Amino acid sequence: MSLNPVIAILGRRLRLAVIGGGPGSFIGAMHRHAAALDGRYELVAAALSSDPARSIQAGQELGLAPERAYASGPALFAGERLLADGAEVVAIMTPNDSHFELCSAALAAGFDVICDKPMTNTIEEARTLHAAVAASGRVFCLTHNYTGYPMVRQARAMVEAGELGEIRLVQVEYVQGGNAREFQPSQSRSWRHDPVKGGPSLVMGDIGSHAHNLLRFITGLEVKEVAAEVGSIVPGRVVHDYAGALLRLDNGARGSFWVTQAAAGVENSLAIRVSGARGTLEWQQEVPQVLSFKPLDGPAQVRTPNGPGTLPLAARSSRVVKGHPEGFPEAFANLYSDAAEAIAARRAGTAADPLALLFPTSRDGLLGMRFISAVIRSSEANGVWVPVGD
Amino acid sequence: MSLNPVIAILGRRLRLAVIGGGPGSFIGAMHRHAAALDGRYELVAAALSSDPARSIQAGQELGLAPERAYASGPALFAGERLLADGAEVVAIMTPNDSHFELCSAALAAGFDVICDKPMTNTIEEARTLHAAVAASGRVFCLTHNYTGYPMVRQARAMVEAGELGEIRLVQVEYVQGGNAREFQPSQSRSWRHDPVKGGPSLVMGDIGSHAHNLLRFITGLEVKEVAAEVGSIVPGRVVHDYAGALLRLDNGARGSFWVTQAAAGVENSLAIRVSGARGTLEWQQEVPQVLSFKPLDGPAQVRTPNGPGTLPLAARSSRVVKGHPEGFPEAFANLYSDAAEAIAARRAGTAADPLALLFPTSRDGLLGMRFISAVIRSSEANGVWVPVGD
Amino acid sequence: MSLNPVIAILGRRLRLAVIGGGPGSFIGAMHRHAAALDGRYELVAAALSSDPARSIQAGQELGLAPERAYASGPALFAGERLLADGAEVVAIMTPNDSHFELCSAALAAGFDVICDKPMTNTIEEARTLHAAVAASGRVFCLTHNYTGYPMVRQARAMVEAGELGEIRLVQVEYVQGGNAREFQPSQSRSWRHDPVKGGPSLVMGDIGSHAHNLLRFITGLEVKEVAAEVGSIVPGRVVHDYAGALLRLDNGARGSFWVTQAAAGVENSLAIRVSGARGTLEWQQEVPQVLSFKPLDGPAQVRTPNGPGTLPLAARSSRVVKGHPEGFPEAFANLYSDAAEAIAARRAGTAADPLALLFPTSRDGLLGMRFISAVIRSSEANGVWVPVGD
Amino acid sequence: MSLNPVIAILGRRLRLAVIGGGPGSFIGAMHRHAAALDGRYELVAAALSSDPARSIQAGQELGLAPERAYASGPALFAGERLLADGAEVVAIMTPNDSHFELCSAALAAGFDVICDKPMTNTIEEARTLHAAVAASGRVFCLTHNYTGYPMVRQARAMVEAGELGEIRLVQVEYVQGGNAREFQPSQSRSWRHDPVKGGPSLVMGDIGSHAHNLLRFITGLEVKEVAAEVGSIVPGRVVHDYAGALLRLDNGARGSFWVTQAAAGVENSLAIRVSGARGTLEWQQEVPQVLSFKPLDGPAQVRTPNGPGTLPLAARSSRVVKGHPEGFPEAFANLYSDAAEAIAARRAGTAADPLALLFPTSRDGLLGMRFISAVIRSSEANGVWVPVGD
Repeated sequence: MSLNPVIAILGRRLRLAVIGGGPGSFIGAMHRHAAALDGRYELVAAALSSDPARSIQAGQELGLAPERAYASGPALFAGERLLADGAEVVAIMTPNDSHFELCSAALAAGFDVICDKPMTNTIEEARTLHAAVAASGRVFCLTHNYTGYPMVRQARAMVEAGELGEIRLVQVEYVQGGNAREFQPSQSRSWRHDPVKGGPSLVMGDIGSHAHNLLRFITGLEVKEVAAEVGSIVPGRVVHDYAGALLRLDNGARGSFWVTQAAAGVENSLAIRVSGARGTLEWQQEVPQVLSFKPLDGPAQVRTPNGPGTLPLAARSSRVVKGHPEGFPEAFANLYSDAAEAIAARRAGTAADPLALLFPTSRDGLLGMRFISAVIRSSEANGVWVPVGD
Repeated sequence: MSLNPVIAILGRRLRLAVIGGGPGSFIGAMHRHAAALDGRYELVAAALSSDPARSIQAGQELGLAPERAYASGPALFAGERLLADGAEVVAIMTPNDSHFELCSAALAAGFDVICDKPMTNTIEEARTLHAAVAASGRVFCLTHNYTGYPMVRQARAMVEAGELGEIRLVQVEYVQGGNAREFQPSQSRSWRHDPVKGGPSLVMGDIGSHAHNLLRFITGLEVKEVAAEVGSIVPGRVVHDYAGALLRLDNGARGSFWVTQAAAGVENSLAIRVSGARGTLEWQQEVPQVLSFKPLDGPAQVRTPNGPGTLPLAARSSRVVKGHPEGFPEAFANLYSDAAEAIAARRAGTAADPLALLFPTSRDGLLGMRFISAVIRSSEANGVWVPVGD
Repeated sequence: MSLNPVIAILGRRLRLAVIGGGPGSFIGAMHRHAAALDGRYELVAAALSSDPARSIQAGQELGLAPERAYASGPALFAGERLLADGAEVVAIMTPNDSHFELCSAALAAGFDVICDKPMTNTIEEARTLHAAVAASGRVFCLTHNYTGYPMVRQARAMVEAGELGEIRLVQVEYVQGGNAREFQPSQSRSWRHDPVKGGPSLVMGDIGSHAHNLLRFITGLEVKEVAAEVGSIVPGRVVHDYAGALLRLDNGARGSFWVTQAAAGVENSLAIRVSGARGTLEWQQEVPQVLSFKPLDGPAQVRTPNGPGTLPLAARSSRVVKGHPEGFPEAFANLYSDAAEAIAARRAGTAADPLALLFPTSRDGLLGMRFISAVIRSSEANGVWVPVGD
Repeated sequence: MSLNPVIAILGRRLRLAVIGGGPGSFIGAMHRHAAALDGRYELVAAALSSDPARSIQAGQELGLAPERAYASGPALFAGERLLADGAEVVAIMTPNDSHFELCSAALAAGFDVICDKPMTNTIEEARTLHAAVAASGRVFCLTHNYTGYPMVRQARAMVEAGELGEIRLVQVEYVQGGNAREFQPSQSRSWRHDPVKGGPSLVMGDIGSHAHNLLRFITGLEVKEVAAEVGSIVPGRVVHDYAGALLRLDNGARGSFWVTQAAAGVENSLAIRVSGARGTLEWQQEVPQVLSFKPLDGPAQVRTPNGPGTLPLAARSSRVVKGHPEGFPEAFANLYSDAAEAIAARRAGTAADPLALLFPTSRDGLLGMRFISAVIRSSEANGVWVPVGD
C-alpha cells in the first residue's frame, strides 16, 4: 500500500482551509491534528477570528502567510477560489448556527467540505444542505469522530460480516459531567448555552447526535420510532441537559438511549452494547482500544487494534502494531484521511477504496436532526412513540 | 461486638425450615449457604420435594432427620408448630406462583418468613400479603440479595450521608444472556417460562424487580412515573425477555431502566449509576467489590470493602479485611443475618440495631409489583407516562 | 451429585474443633465460615483463649456448651478424645510458632488436622511434622487458601490439560501495604512482628509462602533454584518487609517473584502470570472471578466461574451460576470442603474423588519452608543462585 | 500560550530529514506522525532506502521532491548542508548497529539529532557519542517514547512534588509475546535477530532499555546495582528473549525488573508500580490514559489526562480535554515537540521552557547501555550483585 494515497493519486497533498477553531478551541486543534497526522492535507488558509488582526496573528502561529488569514468564511471562499493554488477543501468548526450558511456557501464556491457536528440547527436546513451536497457532487464529511475509532469500525465490520447474527438489542449512553454545576458564569457567554445559536437541544446536539450516529454506524440499522423525554435537571439551566429514549429499529430490534451532561464527575462515557442472535459487542470510549465480544457460545473475548480477528476496515484504521493504543486524535484523523481519499479520487476521476467511503455525510447529518426532532416531539407528547421519519 | 448477635440474644441459633430449593436448584443452595455462613440459623426442617421419598432423601443429605423432611409447605407448618423445638423461621424458595399462599400460611402459623423474590405474581396478592405481614407482627424478609453487597450498602450510606448531594439522575440496567437462544427444550418445562406460574412478565419478575429494588435501596427514592416498553425480542418466545423504561423519581430526578435476558453472551450485568449534585456513584454486580465514586471536584475514587471511607452500614456487612473480595453468597448471607438479628430481637422483645433493619420487606415486594404493573400499563398505552401508584 | 458428600458417606457432619482465632481475629472468622459454608462440619469444641472464662464466653458466642470451650489445645485434645461424640478434626489458627507443637499433638491424639500457614517456623519442624503426618495416616490440610479460588483451579486444570503447552515463564507478586507505615504501636504487640514467634521472615511467612504455593499449584512445577534478596525497607522495621527473587523451575522455566507488605496504599495484590508455548494465563486476587487467557493465536479470553470452557476441577469449586461472583470465604471453604471429603473417605475406608485431593498438605508446607530458607540463603550470599533442595 | 512555539520563536517550522523507516516500517511511520502532529516540523528530506530508485519512490509518497530523497545518511548530510533551506534536524530510525555512525556524522555535520533507541550497540560507542553530543552543543533526543505519555509525566511530576514521599519500592515489567513462537522464518532475515546488528541482547535493547528508562524517568532515581539473569527460553533462539533483575536504587530503594518477548499472547504489557512512604502509583502502557494513585491514607484514585490534580508537566503533554484518550502517537509526538522547542530555542539563542527539556538524551542512552551491560555481567557471574557504574 502507498504511504500516502492522496499523493499517490494527485502527486501532492490536498490544500485545506479551516474556518473557526481559533486559539483556545479544543475542537479546532483536533481538526488541525487530524488533518496533519497522515500528511494528506496541507493547511493553506484559515479564518480563525472575525477580528482581522487576531486572525492574522493566529494564522501566523499555524504557519500561514498573512494574506491567507481571513476574517470570515465568505472572505476566505472569495479569496481562495481566485488563487491557482488556493484551498480546495474547507473544514468548518464554527458555532452550530453558522454551519448551514457556511457549508452552503463553501459548496456553492466549489469546495469539498468537512463540517463539525451537528450539521445544522434545524431539520429544514439539514434537508436543504443535504440536497445541496447531492447537487454539488462534492465530498461532504461530517465529523462524528467516534466512528473513526478502530474498534468501532471493527464492531461495524463484525456486524456486517454476520458475526453477531441478527441484531436484537442495543444500548447506547453518552454521559458527561461538564454541565453538572449549577452556576458557571462562563456558560452565559457560550453559544452552546444560547438556545438560538446552539440549536434546539444542547445535550442532543452536543452528544446525543454522536450516540445516535454511533449506533447507526455499528449496526447498519436506522431508528424508526422513539419514545423519549428530554429536559433540564440542573436547577437554573435553560437548555436541555439530559435525554432518554426507548428505540425501535428498522429491523424490529429494540434499544435504550441515555445522554446527559449533568452527571457530576463523569468524564466522557460514551458506551454502546449491541446484542445479536450470536453474541454481544461492548465498547466504551474511555478505553477505546478495547472491544469486548461475548459470543453466545465460548468465552468472552477482548479484541484490540490489529489483534487477532481484526477485519480489513479496522486494520486500515489503525497506524500501530498491536498493544500500542491510539486515541481520540487518530480516530478524528481517520475521518479526515478517508475524506481525503474520497476527495482525491473525485478530483482524479477515479474510484476510491469502498472502505474509505464510510465517513459520515450530510445524509447522516439529516438523519441526526430527524432523530433529535423526534425525541423532542415524543417528549412533548407525554412520551408516546413517534416515528423518526425519513 | 459479639461473634453472633443471635446467640448473644437468644442463647442459641434460630431454628430454620426451608421450602423449595431441592437438589439441582441454584437458589436453594444459595439460601442454605446464606443461612449457614454466619451461624445464626440451624436448619431443622425442610420441604424439598412434593414426593415424600425424595424429600426425605434430600433432607438427609442436608443432615435432617426423616421426620423433619416434609412433602409440602403446609405439612411442614403443621408438623413444626407442634414441636417444642420446631422451626421458628421459614424460608420459601418455590416457584413464584406459590409464594403468596405459602407466605400467608407461614405467617398465619406464626413463623417469621424469608421469601425469595418476586414476592407474588399479582399486585392484589402483594397488597394482601403486605397487610398480613403488618398484622402478624412477624419479620418478613424478601431476598433482593443485591442489596446485601457491602459496596451497595456503602453506596446507600454515602447517599444518605449527603456525599452525593441531591440525586438528579439514575441509570440502572440488568442484562443477561440466559434467554438468548431461540430454542431451549429445557425452557418448556420451566415454570419461569409458563406465564401463569412465572408471573405476568418473566424478565420483570426475574431481574427487573431486582433492578428496581436496587435503585430504591441506594437512592432512598421512589419511582413515581414510568414511560416504558416490555416485550419479547427472541423469535418464538411467549414471555417477556426485555423491558425498557424512563423514570421520574419522587424528588424530581430522572432515570433510565433497561433489563433483558436475551443479550447473547452477557453473564449477569446488573449495573447502576447514581448522579447527584456533588458526584456520581457507579457499581457493577460482576465486580461487586468495587464502588466507583466520581466527585464533582477531585479525582475518581475506587472504594472497596473496608477500605478508607467505609461507612458503618458497609463495615458491618463485610467479613473480610480490605483487599479480600467477598461475593454473591456473602451478600445473600447479609440479608439472612440481618433478618436473624431482627427476628431474635423480636422474639426477645428487644430493639435490633437499626442498621440490621434495612433488608427488603413486604413493602418492597408490594412496590416492586406496582412497578412491574406500571411498566406493563405504559407499554400497553403506547409508551405514555403512567403513575406507579402507592 | 449429592448435596453433601460427607453426609452421603458418613450419614452425618464431621465434628470439628478449632484452636485459636478468638474474638477479633479475621482469620479465625474465615476458618469458621469456611467450615460452615457447605455444611460438612459441625463445630463442637474450641480453644479460643488461654483465659478459661474468656474461652467459655467466646465459645458460647459460637454456640458451644461451656464444657466444650477449652483454655488450650492440649486440654482440648485430652477432653475431646474421651467423648463418644468428640471432635474428630482439629483446625489450628494460632500464632505461627505454636503450629508445630499443636499439629504434632493433634496428630498424635488421632485427629485429622487443618492448619493455617505457614506450617512451621523452621525447616526442621516442617520436616518432622511432614514425617509425622505420613506416619499418622491422618489428613493434613494447610490453608493456602488462594488455591481454593475457582479461577486458580481453572488455571491449574488448563495447564494440566496442556492448553498452555510447555510452561516457560512465570511471574508472581504479592504486594500489600499493611506494613507501609513507619510507626504503628499496635505492631509491637503483634506476634507477627516478633521474629521469634513470627518466624524468620515476616513477609515470606505471611505472604511469600502463598505466592510460592500458588505458583506451584497452578504450574505443577517446583522451584529448583533462586537468586534472591530479602530485607526491610521501611525505616525502623526489624522484620523483613520485602523479598525479590529470580526463579529457575524444574522444567527449565524461568520466573520472577516479588513480595512486600510495604507498598503504601496497595490492598492485596496477589497476581500471577504463567506463559507457556501456547498461551499465557493471568490472574489477580483482587478480582478473583476473572482469569485472563491469552492464546498464542486468537483473541484474549476472559474466563469466569462456570463460564464456557470451565474444566471439572473449577466447576466443582464454584457454588454459583455464571456471572455471580464468589470471594475469599468460598475459596477458603473449598479447602475445608475438599479436606472434609478426604477425611470422610478415610474414615469410611473409601476412595475420595481425586479432584478433592488437591488441597495443600504438609508436603507443601515443607516445600514452602525450604523456599523461604533458600531465599534467605541467597540473600545472605550476595544474590547467587542457590538450590531450594528437596 | 502560542499555538506553535516553534513558529512563535523562529517564524517557521523546523526542517526535518529522516533516515530509515521506509515503507512497511512501523516505527518509521510513528516518527513521521510524531513530527507531523503538532506542526513543528516540515519534512524536507529523507533517506528511506539504500536503493536510489526505491528511495525516490518512497520519498515521493511522503511528498518529497526527488532530489531530496537520498540513498544513504551520509549522502543526505552532504546534500542538505549545502542547501540554504536544507534540513536542520535529522531523525534516525535505522537498525541499531548503524545508530552510532549516523548520529556521529549528523552531529559532525551540524544537525540536531533525534535517534531511535537503543542509542548504540556498545557502551564504548555510547560513551563516545555522549561526549560528541556535549561537544557539539546540539540537541540530541533519544526516543524512549513511553516517557511521552501524559500519565507517565504526571507520575514523574507527582514524585517530584513529593506526593509519594521517599521512594522505597519499584516494580517494572515489559512483557510481550512477539517472540514466543519457536520458528518464524521472517526472523532469520531481521536485523533484530542478528546479534551483531541488533546488539548484545535483543530483549534488553528492544524493551529492557525502555523499562529501565521509564523507571528512571518517573522516580528520578538511578539504578546503582543489579542482580540479574538474562537468557533465551524459547527452544532454538540464539538471542536473549527474557531478562530478570533485582534492583538497588541510589536512594536505597529496592526494585524488581522483568522483561520478555516470549510470553505467548501478551501484547505490550509495559507496567510500573512505584511505592513511596506516602502512596503508590501504578501505570500500564496498554491503558495509558489511566494512572492509579493509591495514597497511604484515603481511597485509591484514578487519575486521567487533564483530570483533577493534573500537574503542569502532564497538562502541557496532552492535547485533549478530559475523557478523550490519547495514545502512542501522541506520546511519541510529545518527544518530538519538546525537542522542537529545545532546538528552536537553541537556534534562536533563547531559553526553552524547562518543562520542554525532559526528553531523553544521550546521557539516558549511555545509562541504558550501562544498565544492559550490568545485567549481562551479573547474569554471567551467577547472579551476584554488580554495580551499574557511571
